Amino acid sequence: MNLPWLLQKENIARIEGNHILIGDRRLYPFERTFVTCKNVEEIAEALKAMVTQGGGPLQVALTTLRLISDSPLEEIKRSVAILSDARPTNTTMRRTLASIVDNLEKYPLEERINYLNRLIDSIEESYDSDYQAMGRFGSSLLRDGDIVLTTCFAEHTFTLSLLKAQEEGKRIKVMVPETRPYLQGSRLTAPSLAEVGIEVEVISDAMGAHFMERGEITHYMTACDVVAMDGTAANKVGSLANAIAANYYQIPYTIFALSPDTTLATGEGIVLEERDGSEILQVRGVATTLPTLKGRYPSFDKIEPKLITNIVTPRGIFAPSEVGEAYR
Amino acid sequence: MNLPWLLQKENIARIEGNHILIGDRRLYPFERTFVTCKNVEEIAEALKAMVTQGGGPLQVALTTLRLISDSPLEEIKRSVAILSDARPTNTTMRRTLASIVDNLEKYPLEERINYLNRLIDSIEESYDSDYQAMGRFGSSLLRDGDIVLTTCFAEHTFTLSLLKAQEEGKRIKVMVPETRPYLQGSRLTAPSLAEVGIEVEVISDAMGAHFMERGEITHYMTACDVVAMDGTAANKVGSLANAIAANYYQIPYTIFALSPDTTLATGEGIVLEERDGSEILQVRGVATTLPTLKGRYPSFDKIEPKLITNIVTPRGIFAPSEVGEAYR
Repeated sequence: MNLPWLLQKENIARIEGNHILIGDRRLYPFERTFVTCKNVEEIAEALKAMVTQGGGPLQVALTTLRLISDSPLEEIKRSVAILSDARPTNTTMRRTLASIVDNLEKYPLEERINYLNRLIDSIEESYDSDYQAMGRFGSSLLRDGDIVLTTCFAEHTFTLSLLKAQEEGKRIKVMVPETRPYLQGSRLTAPSLAEVGIEVEVISDAMGAHFMERGEITHYMTACDVVAMDGTAANKVGSLANAIAANYYQIPYTIFALSPDTTLATGEGIVLEERDGSEILQVRGVATTLPTLKGRYPSFDKIEPKLITNIVTPRGIFAPSEVGEAYR
Repeated sequence: MNLPWLLQKENIARIEGNHILIGDRRLYPFERTFVTCKNVEEIAEALKAMVTQGGGPLQVALTTLRLISDSPLEEIKRSVAILSDARPTNTTMRRTLASIVDNLEKYPLEERINYLNRLIDSIEESYDSDYQAMGRFGSSLLRDGDIVLTTCFAEHTFTLSLLKAQEEGKRIKVMVPETRPYLQGSRLTAPSLAEVGIEVEVISDAMGAHFMERGEITHYMTACDVVAMDGTAANKVGSLANAIAANYYQIPYTIFALSPDTTLATGEGIVLEERDGSEILQVRGVATTLPTLKGRYPSFDKIEPKLITNIVTPRGIFAPSEVGEAYR
């Protein structure tokens, strides 16, 4: 199964010479361009500026560590700290980077370079294998004729679920809310799914409940940025409104959780990033109102376990109440 | 109390010479311009093209009838039919126009011109008086410190409720979802409320539930395009998602219904306009995705009575189940 252009590894982040090239998701699908970064500060700035998002920052961080694998340990630690702080809600990146650093101390420099690169190879292979497993689990939840609502850009796991379902002969349509203010739905999800032959319809962020009320949506599926051990999830703002509506209309809500966070006993500890409110007052640089007005941009929702039907993880499909046990 | 610029009658529609000038809400607040129409066909085109919306089309229609009051009766009837068909969901305009035509038959031409103009005067006065009454009722539902979520542009009744509450010393903040695709929230509601001294925050259409979950919203208030006798309402798409979330978090939902539709026994008969899906693929003329993708734009939600707490009408504040009795 061919992943869409946007999810191919070399288009997320790659090394060229002494630089990291990050696929610029802010301009996709209008342009397929890359932001070139020459040090970790520039990379962190790019992550904060949303050059990439979702699973992108982790891939960028791993690629960065490859580039600086011959640096002194202190420099690697400093870089990891800077990268981890760039996107506070995404704890998968933070935890993955922390686990890498933990193991580096015991190796002398030469061995460390080899060890680090092999470790990153194995982490990437492990994620790829997790993606495939979650794609199989996700596909098993889809039925022929399903109309799936999503939110934002649910990347590999959701895309692979749809591709596997398609391979199995199931016809699935996906309704894609545009996901303001950065339009990850209309710019990333919709073109990427269309590229691999999935039927898509672009809607506004206000329309999920509308189509549920009309009986036009049979499943709600999103990624998540973090899942706590009590089954509380955080995902792009707007996920909660659709989860509540799905609950009201008794439509299943499935989230894909690549890496449930064992350090978070409950949702209480989830840090929700609130970004600059002025970001909501524009679309692709065009003003949506007077610049003197105040905007608010909380970028993530916290979703309580009772609103979630299935949590798809690399270890299987769980009810929210089962995640803590599965990841203990 | 001074209404904001956008709600002042001469800025909604006015006669200049042989033409009707319609305030162009598509360009507000970036430009304060008018579309000039020289016949009823151009006026209907302007209504279909969303030059004005909400209560605007009714004001345009009344102004049009003033302009053509000396035309033959058949021409007036033809014009009324064309105007009524321009926005199918807004039945207040249709019913008001039908009631006007019903009474014209019995008058010879000269008397008809006078009668028609006096009738329109009295209809406009009656609406103004209804607005004031509904503003008083709306204000009575607001408490000092309330944070009100709205949707789209709820115009006179909501604005007057806020102004009266302000006059009574209540501090109210309004959270305004931008209302894609035409941004009536960020372009019309937010600048208009800010203009008259109400504190506003602009959010995306996805964020209503988010702020409810955080306890930051205490009341949800919208206009409605139509209310049936069983208390079912229709309003701008997105109203339903917020109504379901308000219900989930036990936050009251108040709708302003200028003219409950006695011809609709239940919500079954409400016609929901579905507009060209390509309208969702742009913001102010800027593409949000590839033009080859399919968009959907159902412009109104149907909201079942059990999701509504209060229906504010010119006759008082009712529970949805009481509207049929009050308007029998």
